[in-house]
Amino acid sequence: MIKANDPSRKSWVHVPADSDFSIQNIPFGIFKTSDLNPRAATAIGDKVVDLSILHEVGLLEGLDLPSGIFSKPNLNDFMELGKATTRRVRDRISDLLEENNAELRDNDKLRSTVFHDMESVEMLMPVSVPNYTDFYSSEQHAFNVGTMFRGPENALMPNWKHIPVGYHGRASSIVVSGTPFHRPKGQTKADDADVPSFGPCRLLDFELEMAYITCKENPLGDAVSTSEAEDYIFGFVILNDWSARDIQKWEYVPLGPFLAKNFASHVSPWIVTMDALEPFMVEGPNQSPEVLPYLRYEKATHFDVSLEVGIQPEGAEETVVSNSNFKHMYWNVRQQLAHHTVNGCNMQVGDMYGSGTISGPEESAYGSMLELSWRGTKPLPMTDGSERKFILDGDTVIMRGHAEKDGIRVGFGEVKAKVLPAK
Amino acid sequence: MIKANDPSRKSWVHVPADSDFSIQNIPFGIFKTSDLNPRAATAIGDKVVDLSILHEVGLLEGLDLPSGIFSKPNLNDFMELGKATTRRVRDRISDLLEENNAELRDNDKLRSTVFHDMESVEMLMPVSVPNYTDFYSSEQHAFNVGTMFRGPENALMPNWKHIPVGYHGRASSIVVSGTPFHRPKGQTKADDADVPSFGPCRLLDFELEMAYITCKENPLGDAVSTSEAEDYIFGFVILNDWSARDIQKWEYVPLGPFLAKNFASHVSPWIVTMDALEPFMVEGPNQSPEVLPYLRYEKATHFDVSLEVGIQPEGAEETVVSNSNFKHMYWNVRQQLAHHTVNGCNMQVGDMYGSGTISGPEESAYGSMLELSWRGTKPLPMTDGSERKFILDGDTVIMRGHAEKDGIRVGFGEVKAKVLPAK
Repeated sequence: MIKANDPSRKSWVHVPADSDFSIQNIPFGIFKTSDLNPRAATAIGDKVVDLSILHEVGLLEGLDLPSGIFSKPNLNDFMELGKATTRRVRDRISDLLEENNAELRDNDKLRSTVFHDMESVEMLMPVSVPNYTDFYSSEQHAFNVGTMFRGPENALMPNWKHIPVGYHGRASSIVVSGTPFHRPKGQTKADDADVPSFGPCRLLDFELEMAYITCKENPLGDAVSTSEAEDYIFGFVILNDWSARDIQKWEYVPLGPFLAKNFASHVSPWIVTMDALEPFMVEGPNQSPEVLPYLRYEKATHFDVSLEVGIQPEGAEETVVSNSNFKHMYWNVRQQLAHHTVNGCNMQVGDMYGSGTISGPEESAYGSMLELSWRGTKPLPMTDGSERKFILDGDTVIMRGHAEKDGIRVGFGEVKAKVLPAK
Repeated sequence: MIKANDPSRKSWVHVPADSDFSIQNIPFGIFKTSDLNPRAATAIGDKVVDLSILHEVGLLEGLDLPSGIFSKPNLNDFMELGKATTRRVRDRISDLLEENNAELRDNDKLRSTVFHDMESVEMLMPVSVPNYTDFYSSEQHAFNVGTMFRGPENALMPNWKHIPVGYHGRASSIVVSGTPFHRPKGQTKADDADVPSFGPCRLLDFELEMAYITCKENPLGDAVSTSEAEDYIFGFVILNDWSARDIQKWEYVPLGPFLAKNFASHVSPWIVTMDALEPFMVEGPNQSPEVLPYLRYEKATHFDVSLEVGIQPEGAEETVVSNSNFKHMYWNVRQQLAHHTVNGCNMQVGDMYGSGTISGPEESAYGSMLELSWRGTKPLPMTDGSERKFILDGDTVIMRGHAEKDGIRVGFGEVKAKVLPAK
């Protein structure tokens, strides 16, 4: 067992029972304050722990960390040290926070510099993203969307159960939770119109996704096998892949989604390591027809992570509209990475790989408004008495995720974004 | 007129009549040698001129250049200085190479350090590419491909004349001319097969494209108009967007090309500035139906750049298989950039934007083997007696491009890559 995952560990830091940031989590993120430049941190309970200072004062000695590694504006260089090193760092941080360890606990002065209230800091993008790929790996989602457009008999494309279908997305517009953004404008064409028109998107949607972040490069031309994939995956975030359905419908044939997706994609700020999620791994579905040999895999590779989506209208209470789970995937992350590299495509450190919308089997577990409101035919009631087919200006969409087992909780916090009116 | 473009200028450096690198060009690139770290350069005649040394010794004084700006492994920071500055730098370099300027001409010692034979240096990727988008903007190409798959009546998709259709590509696998690469492997499915199979691509193709590189960011949420676009475009390279047609056919519905494209894309090493191409601008085609207001533009925006593609079988002479021209575009670069940002998508410095395959109206001007051999039905004869439907192992594909007017030639050199057998 990875030491930091030991369920018997307790921290001297107070961790509320419903906190995502138990001592078994130890995620990584980047924060700043009005006084402090961007730097790396972990989270425990309601606290943010400044890793740059822990390193500076020598509490992370003996881990082969280059000087200043935690004083950078992103985690790319840290992740690039490789999982053997980053795993030891996570273990060491866990030790420092463990209830019987006095090194930090009993050093009042240091503790007051190193600890911040989570509410008092600004979280930033944890990584610089050189490449972004989005998969389409939830069968229920692909089936739902296919059913709406082609009927249930032809819902899944012929390639869907043979290929973890994916496409390249836009890296520049991936932003951290809370970043303001405006309803996009673009071309749309009504079914009964002769020509397209231009204006604000009318069918703005979220997509509930998880994304993994890579920490290792493969040379151009070399494939990564399903068994090697784990070495390449540092951790996960929650991803809201905003989608403009009306723009998408008019633009996407034949080369795929473009302006319908690249105006903004929000991610949660804390990278929960693949290590921390290991205790929550479960078997995936039986894959039939059998996949080609390069997509076969050995170990359990799905993650039992509960996910929820809430909509908070301007000035009103939040309504939870979806309860899904990351385990509702057909293709797993090992298969995605093996497929992506089988032609020699090179991964880079900091790359982000989205799961695609995660829809569970029940209607209440669908991961987008397109599915939840079934193309707008079944509006969702909000607790303030209004209803939603798609997302309105002033709405804040909040996604949360956590794994829980035997009383241990490891979570992501949230990704949250408010839709401002079109400019 | 931009000073460096003055057609009456001559250089004290010998420039062969058929050289792409006249004193009216002054492109930018990155090179290294066995002794020298990567650094910026321009090219004139058969020579590479080390800009880092010119800057070091004070010959680029008064241009607001940060120290070490030309000693970096890419041109991103230089481009980010903005076109007002980079234009003055190009003018100043032109002055230093102008026949009556003695500063460098008469300094034998300096000249011997600054000048290298082009053959003796290794050219590197000129930029680090944060985002890569590929458009699909040549009407003849879209028509040809559409005709093959749907017949001439339905060749163009309904959106094609309203939207400069584009999609996100993979930035990590964009490599400089000469970089070795292997035939990709992947899933394909024969029309008469029940299930897909795995193996080396059998229909490897090139795509003849130009790409522009951006030098300015727009904030997320802000659109760039067609009239502002010029400020964002630093210059152009030739792009070979390698395509695995059989992989593409099986994977691309519904989310677009993925592994069929992302195994390698080669670019020419010298960025020819948009400024240097200004004298070669021509009117584009009449666009009908009329485009939406955000896609209207004022100035001539097409570029009269002759392009050719050669195939050199292993150990044999090259056969030129295509003669096209960058002017054969329906959508121009201003429209592409305005469309890309109209939803608020943010451009970054170093981004690459491909034109899509450039096919002219004659069969000999088609920009891919798919079109030239019409899906393999019309094999192309090689001068060595063999023939080609698609690209074979051992073949080297070479693309060249240059503009010429009133005896002035401004060119790109070449992008060249040899196909090694699948690993």
